[in-house]
Amino acid sequence: MSDAPSVQPSLNEIVSLCKRRGFIFPSSEIYGGFAASWDYGPLGVELKNSVKQSWWKDTVTSRPNVVGMDGAVTTHPRVWEASGHVEGFHDPLIICKTCGHRFRADKINEEQCPQKPSKKPHECGGELTEPKNFNLMFKVHWGPVEDAGQFTYLRPETCQTIFPNFKNVLTTTRQRVPFGIAQIGKSFRNEITTKSFIFRQREFEQMELEFFTHPNEAKQWFEHWVNARKEWYISLGVRASRLRLRQHDADELAHYADDCYDVEYQFPMGWQELEGIANRTDFDLKRHMEYSKKDLSYRDDLTGEKYVPYVVESSAGVDRTVLTLLSDAYDIDQAPNDKGEMEERNVLRFSPKVAPVTLAVFPLFKKPPEMVELAHKIEDDLRLDYKTNYDDAGNIGKRYRRQDEIGTPLCITVDHDSLQDNSVTIRNRDDMSQIRVSVDQLRSAIADQLKEMSKPRA
Amino acid sequence: MSDAPSVQPSLNEIVSLCKRRGFIFPSSEIYGGFAASWDYGPLGVELKNSVKQSWWKDTVTSRPNVVGMDGAVTTHPRVWEASGHVEGFHDPLIICKTCGHRFRADKINEEQCPQKPSKKPHECGGELTEPKNFNLMFKVHWGPVEDAGQFTYLRPETCQTIFPNFKNVLTTTRQRVPFGIAQIGKSFRNEITTKSFIFRQREFEQMELEFFTHPNEAKQWFEHWVNARKEWYISLGVRASRLRLRQHDADELAHYADDCYDVEYQFPMGWQELEGIANRTDFDLKRHMEYSKKDLSYRDDLTGEKYVPYVVESSAGVDRTVLTLLSDAYDIDQAPNDKGEMEERNVLRFSPKVAPVTLAVFPLFKKPPEMVELAHKIEDDLRLDYKTNYDDAGNIGKRYRRQDEIGTPLCITVDHDSLQDNSVTIRNRDDMSQIRVSVDQLRSAIADQLKEMSKPRA
Repeated sequence: MSDAPSVQPSLNEIVSLCKRRGFIFPSSEIYGGFAASWDYGPLGVELKNSVKQSWWKDTVTSRPNVVGMDGAVTTHPRVWEASGHVEGFHDPLIICKTCGHRFRADKINEEQCPQKPSKKPHECGGELTEPKNFNLMFKVHWGPVEDAGQFTYLRPETCQTIFPNFKNVLTTTRQRVPFGIAQIGKSFRNEITTKSFIFRQREFEQMELEFFTHPNEAKQWFEHWVNARKEWYISLGVRASRLRLRQHDADELAHYADDCYDVEYQFPMGWQELEGIANRTDFDLKRHMEYSKKDLSYRDDLTGEKYVPYVVESSAGVDRTVLTLLSDAYDIDQAPNDKGEMEERNVLRFSPKVAPVTLAVFPLFKKPPEMVELAHKIEDDLRLDYKTNYDDAGNIGKRYRRQDEIGTPLCITVDHDSLQDNSVTIRNRDDMSQIRVSVDQLRSAIADQLKEMSKPRA
Repeated sequence: MSDAPSVQPSLNEIVSLCKRRGFIFPSSEIYGGFAASWDYGPLGVELKNSVKQSWWKDTVTSRPNVVGMDGAVTTHPRVWEASGHVEGFHDPLIICKTCGHRFRADKINEEQCPQKPSKKPHECGGELTEPKNFNLMFKVHWGPVEDAGQFTYLRPETCQTIFPNFKNVLTTTRQRVPFGIAQIGKSFRNEITTKSFIFRQREFEQMELEFFTHPNEAKQWFEHWVNARKEWYISLGVRASRLRLRQHDADELAHYADDCYDVEYQFPMGWQELEGIANRTDFDLKRHMEYSKKDLSYRDDLTGEKYVPYVVESSAGVDRTVLTLLSDAYDIDQAPNDKGEMEERNVLRFSPKVAPVTLAVFPLFKKPPEMVELAHKIEDDLRLDYKTNYDDAGNIGKRYRRQDEIGTPLCITVDHDSLQDNSVTIRNRDDMSQIRVSVDQLRSAIADQLKEMSKPRA
């Protein structure tokens, strides 16, 4: 059922569902919103936490050769000189002399004039300025003296707090190259234009891995991580048919990169980068050696060889992964209403691994009290191990629709018979099948169905 | 054993242990450090993640009447006008006219002159300026136009992204008052002086709950949360004897607060606030109603009553909780070395619920290969469910000491006999006892010991 061809939603449909059901709200909405900022609501934060926890387990705790860290957003400004961001982290900014709006020169054909959304900006009639370099880092005065030149930047990527800690981590963990350091955290970029919902925001969250290898082994580790990272999305339930790997052309590669693949997903707005995996060579460690005058080379105690490790980087976006899961799960099919007539049904086909609510528990009616009591008792027990939801409002068909729309895999209903024979109904989101099980067998029946629903999709 | 009186470490001893073993590093250390910023290393990030996951489970997912959210750090600036931060979130700044240093006027007697650390600042001889209000919010230009007055603030607390979303959350979750909204995230305050390691930083992480109640029920919910929050620290293994509740005096209360308790911990630098629980009345919702002109009142569909809910807030610090766990777990006792002589032993008595490594697995020697192979096999299996560490370097006594110092509850050793009888040794961190179990019984023996070590401490 879940492998059937399904609907590709528009971005607006996803935004609307997210607002309506509490996944993602426009930030500061009661104040008219704040450009390109979004707040995760109750369902969104659970979805996001599942993404982060799954990544951490897959990348860090399940591997003997990767450790985690969590660096501050605010670091010594010299870090960003060493990384090249102060000098080169620019986008070309152009301004329309008529309407005053700002655009990226390299994306001018994709962007709309906010005053005339249906027109391209150069069609608003205004003359455009020459492109000038606009640095994308946010500068912040730091400490109690505004005028004394004490400042820092909000980090535009998490990985640059990993490289300066290379030696600290190496020494304290007793790891040997090859090994990796992984991190999840917020980054900030002053994008000239933001777009596509949570796809490109000024504040966003990254999951980055820097894997340090011998220069001769970088190529094979690069291949390992390209495949491992694509497989991770599939393990979350993302359809393999909407994922692809795209190798960067030679003229697209950063000057320090030896090779780079993007994992791309077929978003509502087309194929877009979900993650980049790059062989960054020894560029980063050498730059930080140059700027800090500290030795960041590695000495292999078995061979005696001393070298600066190469780095294979995997750089994934938390928010983009959330948007992928929402886009991929979105579906519309047909289901019978209370009168037996077929109607459109909105359903999010989340894998149970990421579904914000795993199990919903209903009493069929609000009385007798014993029915409500048993439903509460079952939910209280299941809540110890699952994310649960209790709902007693409206008829049972409406309650199923609400759970379908937020992607709850299974609904458990307590009815009059339950009070006699201690059995309940388990209803499956995807094929809408219902089975009857005794409460004693409930946990194993749930585990079986969730396991089946966690299988990869084609 | 773990209830025995134990050592109270100095803050310097904790800082030193954290650096040496990879819990927490000075940020940008290779560039000479960056004032008051710290990076969590491999062990620190696991400890911190355990704190956050435990809080989330205790506060959100285990309760039917609390939901989570995750708001952006960057919001509409009007949020901070409504909250009162633009007008009133100041500390009194004074400057020494001789040495130029900045101090908090209200803490002048606690602070040191950085040029003469042993002296109080007013002893450096310089005249001090009159106090002036210094706003603690970081202002950031936002978007591609530096001069156009587009700006935001980095949030100085997470809770102010909860109040504007009150209605959105209420509507989408179908919760009824009383219910709570909880959030974990970074906040930023431009403190005039930072101090005490990770206790007071400019960038820090909060865990906040806003619990909305009928005004008449606020008092009882306040009492509920004061007790529940203190119990949470005890559940993490913090000794009850080093925790206390302190009620704010009337002249200490914020003008909008009806009542407030601090949970205090006996840190190395004395009793200090770990968390505040406050009855904030209807101040926040009413202010956001006033500034947004939106109705944030609640209508009870059973009674028909319409009112602005009161808010009981619990505001805890992630970093302060980490410092509490480190301080509380720190201990020194006596253990025999390889020659049977008693020596000082450094040990972190973490509860297994928060220990960054739960199980270490050792082969007694690096050969025969079968011994190494069996040790790897056992670790690979246990890594599916526990945070594990493999160590084959140095003699077994040294390896125990290393694990003791990072607080690993149990060590499992594979030796020559293991290859004959398929049994291994489990060694307990706290009483250093060793038991021999067959590999078939290993998981249940581990579970028993971890359960015992997870009990609350007096």
